[in-house]
Amino acid sequence: MGMSGFTGSGYPKAVPGELAQRMTAAHAAGDEFTIGLLTGASTSQELDGVLAKAKGVHLRAPFNTDPDMRRAINAGDVEFIDTHLSHLAQQVWFGYYGKLDVAVIEVAAVLPNGLLVPGSSVGNNKTWLDQADKVILEVNEWHPREYEGFHDVYYGTQLPPRRNPIEILRPDQRIGDPYLRVDPKKVVAIVETNAPDRDNAFAPVDEKSEAMAGYLIDFLRHEVRAGRMPDTLLPIQSGSGNVANAVLDGLKTSEFEHLTSYTEVIQDNLLGLLDTGTLDSISATAFSLSREAAENFNANIESYKGRILLRPQEMSNHPEIVRRLGLIAINGMVEADIYGHVNSTHVSGSRMLNGIGGSGDFARNAFLNFFVSPSTAKNGVISTIVPMASHVDHTEHDVHVLVTEQGIADLRGTSPIKRARRVIDNCAHPDYRDRLHDYLDRAIAASKGAGHSPHILSEALSWHTNFLDSGQM
Amino acid sequence: MGMSGFTGSGYPKAVPGELAQRMTAAHAAGDEFTIGLLTGASTSQELDGVLAKAKGVHLRAPFNTDPDMRRAINAGDVEFIDTHLSHLAQQVWFGYYGKLDVAVIEVAAVLPNGLLVPGSSVGNNKTWLDQADKVILEVNEWHPREYEGFHDVYYGTQLPPRRNPIEILRPDQRIGDPYLRVDPKKVVAIVETNAPDRDNAFAPVDEKSEAMAGYLIDFLRHEVRAGRMPDTLLPIQSGSGNVANAVLDGLKTSEFEHLTSYTEVIQDNLLGLLDTGTLDSISATAFSLSREAAENFNANIESYKGRILLRPQEMSNHPEIVRRLGLIAINGMVEADIYGHVNSTHVSGSRMLNGIGGSGDFARNAFLNFFVSPSTAKNGVISTIVPMASHVDHTEHDVHVLVTEQGIADLRGTSPIKRARRVIDNCAHPDYRDRLHDYLDRAIAASKGAGHSPHILSEALSWHTNFLDSGQM
Repeated sequence: MGMSGFTGSGYPKAVPGELAQRMTAAHAAGDEFTIGLLTGASTSQELDGVLAKAKGVHLRAPFNTDPDMRRAINAGDVEFIDTHLSHLAQQVWFGYYGKLDVAVIEVAAVLPNGLLVPGSSVGNNKTWLDQADKVILEVNEWHPREYEGFHDVYYGTQLPPRRNPIEILRPDQRIGDPYLRVDPKKVVAIVETNAPDRDNAFAPVDEKSEAMAGYLIDFLRHEVRAGRMPDTLLPIQSGSGNVANAVLDGLKTSEFEHLTSYTEVIQDNLLGLLDTGTLDSISATAFSLSREAAENFNANIESYKGRILLRPQEMSNHPEIVRRLGLIAINGMVEADIYGHVNSTHVSGSRMLNGIGGSGDFARNAFLNFFVSPSTAKNGVISTIVPMASHVDHTEHDVHVLVTEQGIADLRGTSPIKRARRVIDNCAHPDYRDRLHDYLDRAIAASKGAGHSPHILSEALSWHTNFLDSGQM
Repeated sequence: MGMSGFTGSGYPKAVPGELAQRMTAAHAAGDEFTIGLLTGASTSQELDGVLAKAKGVHLRAPFNTDPDMRRAINAGDVEFIDTHLSHLAQQVWFGYYGKLDVAVIEVAAVLPNGLLVPGSSVGNNKTWLDQADKVILEVNEWHPREYEGFHDVYYGTQLPPRRNPIEILRPDQRIGDPYLRVDPKKVVAIVETNAPDRDNAFAPVDEKSEAMAGYLIDFLRHEVRAGRMPDTLLPIQSGSGNVANAVLDGLKTSEFEHLTSYTEVIQDNLLGLLDTGTLDSISATAFSLSREAAENFNANIESYKGRILLRPQEMSNHPEIVRRLGLIAINGMVEADIYGHVNSTHVSGSRMLNGIGGSGDFARNAFLNFFVSPSTAKNGVISTIVPMASHVDHTEHDVHVLVTEQGIADLRGTSPIKRARRVIDNCAHPDYRDRLHDYLDRAIAASKGAGHSPHILSEALSWHTNFLDSGQM
């Protein structure tokens, strides 16, 4: 089944709960009843949560943040396929997951001619509506009818060899339709709801996040001075989370103005930058707002028209566009190693957190990418900078700049050992710096003709095993 | 310094040797004299070799296959920056490496109006000619004058925010000029030479390569039957090496015809497919031929005109084009782990082999990618399939199909544990299969709520340390 939903917005509110009840009843009767569940990205307790609790999902892609679903994934009960968010739609089209039986899609309205007005997210809805045999629509009255005109659904995608250039030259450029289309013969049910999206509240900006935001914004000033970008910068992509939030907060009080954003999700602070004039326009695939910001947006929606476009996630995250527009990509990380490999997904190499999401789509093809995280976790017992990453989602070839509350390390155009010294000196927490230099010194000394990226393999993952064994690295 | 040269073709034949002599003399006199050396990709003993022997290089990018240079890199004497081949030109343009002082570029001819007719490779020559303060041209008479018309040099690149779509829709489509341009005021010397390119002889197809080629071509048949590609396939990219060579050999005697290639290098067998009608056209950035094939091509060059285009490596490897055309990417590997991470660059995690080259440019954005290698190395003491890769160049999110002489593993749309079983059963050598399953079984058993990609971190790299300690895994 393909369902709508991206970062807690635009997911179906009614059908998943009903489905979970029928699953539970079937299981009680000794019958099997599970689904493969594809969405845009994360949904909410009302979708992933209830289906995970009902033990109703055998396969899940491409991203999840629900704790019950995460537990099921890490227990081995759910096969989780951790895919670049821009790739899933085409993979389903290619047939990697077999036939899509049913699509359950939330929309803001169904027009008399059958056109659908999307709501707070687009995600993979176009593909699910195209590919599914049967379609269930949820029309959620909570989404303002005035959402009409906020979306840009590109219907020009093709399979190779018939693909054409995607002619987006600016974040605010339309290339598609404001509506989703569905073959009315496939629609087996329309469910009316009136329920809010997940409340995506986030923590207020803390000291560490503010420090990281400061380094990052200073770095952007440096890039402008170096002539590498105009003083309106280049389109900004920011992942979700507190640091991205702090960066956006920092931009608000900076000298920068007339910026643009080409990103996945619109969080409170990004929306706020439209109000202050810091941002001129935002292209994304979904909102991810606190309840308060969502209600405020819904009440004033018309004033944002023409300044926000929501596109399918294939387009919001498309490598061709990311490369052409020259994005500044800002994403969180679990850990980075001294040579600049970044782990975005796995705790201690084994446990899935949320998934790679769009970080690979953006970072790989960005003009400039930042990976940001506090230098330690769990009150200092975990170092974010480690000798060797326990899982690699972004390789040394693709990581440009690391940022922690300790400082910033520009890895562009550097060889591994130079890179390692810079990462340790600028980004590692002082409590771990000497041990990291010591590891590197000994690795170099022991390298004997194998010294490009010297490692002591018997020790490279020992910080992680220390943590697993003793609770600290 | 930026020099021409890509996979042993089109590199300057005279200046590097002279430069090396002057370096040696300077060093003997107690003076420092080293350069940072940027090329297209690998060159030859006459360039990388002599400069490495003269200890004349302090920085090298983006790729190297010369044994003396490799030794210097792994000794820590040369900073090597292992960069995607499509990225280096723009990185130099962005200023990551400072100012480019001198370009040394081999061409086939200089026209009276100053336009340059490129020879057997284009590589990064356009950017080196644009960015360098001074230019030395080597005009190599060994390249036929009839090279005029074989090249497509795109002069429409821009820095963001002024980038436009790159309008290539077919491998044989021209979007640029047949000539390189240079400001005549920058040309400080023109050197005339008459010397052949490196002899890129390769081993005849062996049994293992033939087996791998067979699996791979059968897999392509399967994809055609599944409706995922037309019976003329999609444009083929093949890395250099014996397996790619065997695949091309296998295609020659297959039912496939009217294929196309969008790739980096044209090896003997790829050229041969134009002769048999298996291929209609090839787009690349360089030749990499045996002496015999090169001489044969030079003698019959006119008959290939219109069927071969050589482009700058930015374009031959450009993510936008790779994605749009939907390439079938075939590349070698050092090792792969059970979860599908691929190491293309480092032996035992530390020692640089050649570099990532174009494998990331192609694999990441390809319609379908294959990573191929025999299942063992060094007479069986090394397993290509390991519990955890000792270095990751291509992540689990990007690797589609693994091929060894044991079989083929389709990893598309699979979760990690399913993927692992398939890799072990289909690709690992039987001598290592039970131990790999045993590792995975024990990792799953020990995973306790961290079971998405279960690893035993204290043991994950033990196969490599076994090899380093005892000479076998």
